[in-house]
Amino acid sequence: MSQLSEFLSNNQNKNVEELKELLRIPSISSLSEHKEDVQKAASWILNKLKQIGMEHVEIIQTKGHPIIYADLIHQENAPTVLVYGHYDVQPVDPVNLWETPPFEPTIRDEKIFARGATDDKGQMFLHIKAVETLLELNGKLPVNIKFCIEGEEEIGSPNLPHFLTKSKEKLSCDVVVISDSDMWDKGIPAITYSLRGLCSLEVSLKTANSDLHSGMYGGGVQNANHLLVQLLSTLHDSNGKVNVEHFYDEVMVLTEFEKEQIKALGFDEEKLKKSLGLTDLVGGEKNHPYSERISSRPTLEINGLWGGFQGEGTKTVIPNEAHAKITCRLVNNQDPKKIQELVKKHLDEHAPKGCTVKVSVGDVGNPFLTPIDSPMIQKAAEAYKKVYEKSPVYKREGGSIPIVSDFSQILNVPVVLMGFGLPDENLHAPNEHFHLENFDKGILTICAFLELI
Amino acid sequence: MSQLSEFLSNNQNKNVEELKELLRIPSISSLSEHKEDVQKAASWILNKLKQIGMEHVEIIQTKGHPIIYADLIHQENAPTVLVYGHYDVQPVDPVNLWETPPFEPTIRDEKIFARGATDDKGQMFLHIKAVETLLELNGKLPVNIKFCIEGEEEIGSPNLPHFLTKSKEKLSCDVVVISDSDMWDKGIPAITYSLRGLCSLEVSLKTANSDLHSGMYGGGVQNANHLLVQLLSTLHDSNGKVNVEHFYDEVMVLTEFEKEQIKALGFDEEKLKKSLGLTDLVGGEKNHPYSERISSRPTLEINGLWGGFQGEGTKTVIPNEAHAKITCRLVNNQDPKKIQELVKKHLDEHAPKGCTVKVSVGDVGNPFLTPIDSPMIQKAAEAYKKVYEKSPVYKREGGSIPIVSDFSQILNVPVVLMGFGLPDENLHAPNEHFHLENFDKGILTICAFLELI
Repeated sequence: MSQLSEFLSNNQNKNVEELKELLRIPSISSLSEHKEDVQKAASWILNKLKQIGMEHVEIIQTKGHPIIYADLIHQENAPTVLVYGHYDVQPVDPVNLWETPPFEPTIRDEKIFARGATDDKGQMFLHIKAVETLLELNGKLPVNIKFCIEGEEEIGSPNLPHFLTKSKEKLSCDVVVISDSDMWDKGIPAITYSLRGLCSLEVSLKTANSDLHSGMYGGGVQNANHLLVQLLSTLHDSNGKVNVEHFYDEVMVLTEFEKEQIKALGFDEEKLKKSLGLTDLVGGEKNHPYSERISSRPTLEINGLWGGFQGEGTKTVIPNEAHAKITCRLVNNQDPKKIQELVKKHLDEHAPKGCTVKVSVGDVGNPFLTPIDSPMIQKAAEAYKKVYEKSPVYKREGGSIPIVSDFSQILNVPVVLMGFGLPDENLHAPNEHFHLENFDKGILTICAFLELI
Repeated sequence: MSQLSEFLSNNQNKNVEELKELLRIPSISSLSEHKEDVQKAASWILNKLKQIGMEHVEIIQTKGHPIIYADLIHQENAPTVLVYGHYDVQPVDPVNLWETPPFEPTIRDEKIFARGATDDKGQMFLHIKAVETLLELNGKLPVNIKFCIEGEEEIGSPNLPHFLTKSKEKLSCDVVVISDSDMWDKGIPAITYSLRGLCSLEVSLKTANSDLHSGMYGGGVQNANHLLVQLLSTLHDSNGKVNVEHFYDEVMVLTEFEKEQIKALGFDEEKLKKSLGLTDLVGGEKNHPYSERISSRPTLEINGLWGGFQGEGTKTVIPNEAHAKITCRLVNNQDPKKIQELVKKHLDEHAPKGCTVKVSVGDVGNPFLTPIDSPMIQKAAEAYKKVYEKSPVYKREGGSIPIVSDFSQILNVPVVLMGFGLPDENLHAPNEHFHLENFDKGILTICAFLELI
């Protein structure tokens, strides 16, 4: 057993007790009655960072909940690592489904149960412990380190991008490390190296100045529902490809290595179909396998659709307006604003005769990708391998975490998503928990990463 | 001035006063607090029919409001005419928009203002007066006559079809005459000789067993909105024709005379476009003119459409269900139930892969047509010409009045819609009224018709 392992093993009890202190604070960012608890959690982090020897520790107030900054910069020729995490948590409803109260951390079966145990207090705390451990053992760190811990992740980080832009200098670094994601499975680490971006649009189609009676006008005047169906039916071709000109122009195609990685993960189509209650998985592009489609290919989804009468029975109305809500999931190097414009242009150009089509653009979020072969990803992989004795799986996630691409784009550095959660740890749900095995191994892996880079 | 005209002229005051009595009774069939008023109106009619000399006068109770029957059958070799009308009226809201109270009949500018003045107390009363007049002048009628006056027309005649079927024998006749429709314009009579029928359907399309997150599944699984759009887009071809096999098989095409009639009526496209706020009138079949499309051609309209998220902002959901409500307007000789089945079959057969499509069938109503050249229509035209000194316009209405086709189909006789209302008499609206000119001319026309057949 290495000196590090031994040290951690001796301190496990103390470390877990400290995490419990933090987990006891109900820092639910979305509920105003917990505003003080959120502040309390921020103060707890602040003190902890001071206590382990971090410098320039400060609380930055925002329009919402505060951000905590700290650094320790003494290694002139070593790289600088910025750790991002969050100390706020999701609400706990339905609280009656919790086996033990959400803010009374309890250990059962080598897992610690509490709201925030895995998302993200537990995972974020690993970095604090790694720094403390290295400082206690060596009196110094092998790198320079900065912490940026926020309290609004669960409400969409409304104030963080502004802080990043404003504090670009202060946050400058060589890599951002975030532990707020999953491993592949028990004992199998994973690095999420790509996230999809997003853009949204809304279409409103109008015909006459009011709804019309189908007895008087039926067959004579245009029906907004018909025209919307006609318009929306142009958005995909018969192979499931998005039929918008230049939509795929900037799409980065998968490397052979990535395709092999995806194949090697062994997707169980039958199991998925059964759990979703589907006989076929026929969304998206026919000429791409399912696992690629949900992670590495862009999409255009009609999330909402409505026009005319939705009540009980029959109403012989010719609706004069119909609407659709659309979002696209995007991949590198698609520019969400550009894609929004392309989709808008398509809808405008395909507007059927006899109506006006108004397209409004909504949210955007950049896709994110740190190439697998980038040095920082490779160091993280090495660190995982050292501790878990297994190479990590390289994952592309189909979802969007805009803040990750914000870090990557604003600070212009690679971001390493080094997750220690497990997929079944009930994040955002009752009985959230974190496996203690990954508490110790997480600290070890982070220490190894800091020593390797 | 004929003897008849002179008689009516002498009695106008008395006749209008009698109508006022009936108009004072607030017989609103849809409001339960007026149940007794509806009964009161029925009694009033009953007494009036007795008073003018009708026989076998009876009130037939139903599950709702009563039907009144009466007859006078003494002309062995003459035809029998069945008069249908209704004594119930629409509600009066918004009552503050009435210039004089709805149940205080008032004469202004040669019009009588009251709820029910034109729809249908006023028009129905013309037939009672015509019979009374002929009996007073001649001591007998030139025909046999039956009355069937109901009190539930404004709530969709829920009990009348059953009564018609049950009383087929009792109601047997050579022609049904109904005065519950419009003239073409002031001084220009009209005969509505065709109404469209109706059938309705609802489509529910389902994919997975729940809504899915587009981050995790987007591009992988089918989206119910996409599949519904795809399915609905098959219902019409690019020329606006309904794309359902055999849909048009039984459609009776317009005769050259009918086409000329429609053309001669001189439809003002620019005026209509302006009033509807449309730049084009592009609903329905491209190769038929507007006036034909809204009156003489069948349609398929998507009255309602919905799936997924309709709230504010963005929700990255892949909806697992989507719905549409459909009605078809039908023309002779389309069978509504058969068309329903054809549309259902089309939807089932075109169900996209990866979903289940459930089609449920709703209301049906038969189309109605009495050919222009049928003897009864021609006699009615002659009667109009005699009184108004103008040939009537032959109109096809695009709407549906199921009870008209019920009379036609159950009793298997021609139905003559001999209207004396004017299009701007505010039926169903505040300040409903009836032109007194058409009160006298209406009685004269009905007398002429009874003498001609």
